[in-house]
Amino acid sequence: MIELSNRVKQTKESYIRNILKVFQQPGMLSLAGGLPDTHRFPQSILAYAAAELADQPSIYQYGATEGLTELREFILASKPFAEEVIITSGSQQALDLIARCYLNPGDQVLCETPSYLGALQIFDLAEAETLSVDSEQDGPNLAHLEQVLAANNVKFFYAVPDFQNPSSRCWSQAKRQAVADLLAKYKVAFVEDAPYRELRYEGEPLTTVTELCKGDAFYLGSFSKIATPGMRVGYAMASKPLLAPLIKVKQASDLHSALPMQKMLLSTITHPDFGLHLEQLKSHYCSRRDALVSALQKHLSDYVDFAVPQGGMFVWCRLKQHQAQHIAAAALKAKVAIVPGDEFWPARSTVNDQAIRLNFTALDSKGLEQAVIRLATVMQQSQASG
Amino acid sequence: MIELSNRVKQTKESYIRNILKVFQQPGMLSLAGGLPDTHRFPQSILAYAAAELADQPSIYQYGATEGLTELREFILASKPFAEEVIITSGSQQALDLIARCYLNPGDQVLCETPSYLGALQIFDLAEAETLSVDSEQDGPNLAHLEQVLAANNVKFFYAVPDFQNPSSRCWSQAKRQAVADLLAKYKVAFVEDAPYRELRYEGEPLTTVTELCKGDAFYLGSFSKIATPGMRVGYAMASKPLLAPLIKVKQASDLHSALPMQKMLLSTITHPDFGLHLEQLKSHYCSRRDALVSALQKHLSDYVDFAVPQGGMFVWCRLKQHQAQHIAAAALKAKVAIVPGDEFWPARSTVNDQAIRLNFTALDSKGLEQAVIRLATVMQQSQASG
Repeated sequence: MIELSNRVKQTKESYIRNILKVFQQPGMLSLAGGLPDTHRFPQSILAYAAAELADQPSIYQYGATEGLTELREFILASKPFAEEVIITSGSQQALDLIARCYLNPGDQVLCETPSYLGALQIFDLAEAETLSVDSEQDGPNLAHLEQVLAANNVKFFYAVPDFQNPSSRCWSQAKRQAVADLLAKYKVAFVEDAPYRELRYEGEPLTTVTELCKGDAFYLGSFSKIATPGMRVGYAMASKPLLAPLIKVKQASDLHSALPMQKMLLSTITHPDFGLHLEQLKSHYCSRRDALVSALQKHLSDYVDFAVPQGGMFVWCRLKQHQAQHIAAAALKAKVAIVPGDEFWPARSTVNDQAIRLNFTALDSKGLEQAVIRLATVMQQSQASG
Repeated sequence: MIELSNRVKQTKESYIRNILKVFQQPGMLSLAGGLPDTHRFPQSILAYAAAELADQPSIYQYGATEGLTELREFILASKPFAEEVIITSGSQQALDLIARCYLNPGDQVLCETPSYLGALQIFDLAEAETLSVDSEQDGPNLAHLEQVLAANNVKFFYAVPDFQNPSSRCWSQAKRQAVADLLAKYKVAFVEDAPYRELRYEGEPLTTVTELCKGDAFYLGSFSKIATPGMRVGYAMASKPLLAPLIKVKQASDLHSALPMQKMLLSTITHPDFGLHLEQLKSHYCSRRDALVSALQKHLSDYVDFAVPQGGMFVWCRLKQHQAQHIAAAALKAKVAIVPGDEFWPARSTVNDQAIRLNFTALDSKGLEQAVIRLATVMQQSQASG
């Protein structure tokens, strides 16, 4: 068979993808996914938006690589800190385009620990060297960040400052400013991935790091968590010169993203009821977060430490005495699916955290508590047998 | 500014993209594009398919990277020569995925002369060395093909055997078999891109080259020319082991293609009226081809040679005495847009053909003749002044 490229050979298989079939076994309670709640998609708004797709021949024609003008204008108006925007097939593609435009094999990128798994795969595909910075509850460890930036030739720092997947951490305002200052000092670009930014359940929104950056910065936005993910509409924002190469690569890679989806997404997010939908969605997820947090406090407080996330879709639990991979494997046998935290570390960095990621958007309150009870049994038995 | 990757630096700008604004000037008659006729999209079928998008929450959720099961099953049933299929964002993405999975920088790929511009851009992005084989009206020059295969270490041969863009050539059955045999002899993979295959206006369909290949072969399919391009739904077919890496790379690059588009496309192509739509579309394009051919015979026979294409969207005109770039520039001043043929040659190969590509799907018969009359004036004047 034709030989594989090096970029594919060195790209790690996704743990989550490989184990997907196990997650879907009957009776399995899954805290392992990262899916929004299908039952909370804005069905009536989507039906309205779908009906708008009839009798518009131009949206079925080839379109501009950078995206539908009206959608681009709407995004630029809502996020006035950036000069230009390109619509992508999910913000995942935006990051892939940045990697293809700016990374040669061996180039260094910096990420948080833990980090978003999909980003790590993209950096592997780009044959980059992925460095990592120690992370704290309120953002990167600044001393370590400066040390890494000073000692290396980092092309860009990739981070999710708002309710990161998997840790749900949200950077403090002070850390945002300090990171922007350090990046300016060392002339390192920033890539801000913000898919969970609008899923804030309490507290006030903080400034995006992009707004604070004096040098090169990209802001990646998504509608997957607040509208629906199946449409695959996301975007990257930056200065025109920074985005121009992304347009060139996107043109070669898929010409443009589906125009009817861009139109439908625009109809959805500009619908008069969308604001209400978003408020209801946040309230719904907030109550599920509360249910998971209560269950953890009630049944697992001997075994895990965690911070209550102010937004996002996950609770990140540090294990006080167990090994994450061991617990995840044992949990599967007890019909509860979780992701061991070390899956979220770059391949060549040292995992300094025994943790598990628990999703709270897919199961209802009863399911969440049931899953935690099963986990508690697994941890008790694992302790007894270990 | 952050430095560009080598792959982007060495990727040629698209002539067509760069000159797009000029094409859109008022009064311009464009034979330069490659768009299907917006007025012939199957509007009533599309309206039906759009209405089907309401009340189906699952198609708005994250989906499987390889695509919607029902659509994949439909394609596999209609093209039983391949084992597996992956749905991509247009067949353009399928080729990009193949390049990312199987090409390292410096690897050799082989293409026809002329070749599809979007493929050449993908091979540039992959930092491949793009070799070319001399092409004849009925397919590759076999002696040259064997010489190139024997003298090099070609990873795969990329070709469009049915009504290629830009040449509209269709390989003969004998050439299809001979190419498949040579590829087997030299153990070189084949990538068959077939976006125009269903746009045949006369004669019987020939066997796909993929069916004849004994070794590795990919078949790329598109719905852009027979349904609509704006949905961005295409596919790649091959054996399971050949496709598995594409799924891995697609997962990292955009997770999956938009599910509502896959569902809508399936509703469109399985609609009872779709067969009739396709027959009417072919008859419509065939009459436009005839209009362009008549106009060329009437007004340009002193200056161009061409074969009447049995399908596709273009007439490829060899210039008897003019230079293609010169004529294209002069034509723009006379308000007619054409693409000079040398744009379709790989960067490092010798252009052995002064030719122009004329599209016949976008203008009506009157517009086509008017454009040819303008071209005739340009060629006459260019001859007089030269």
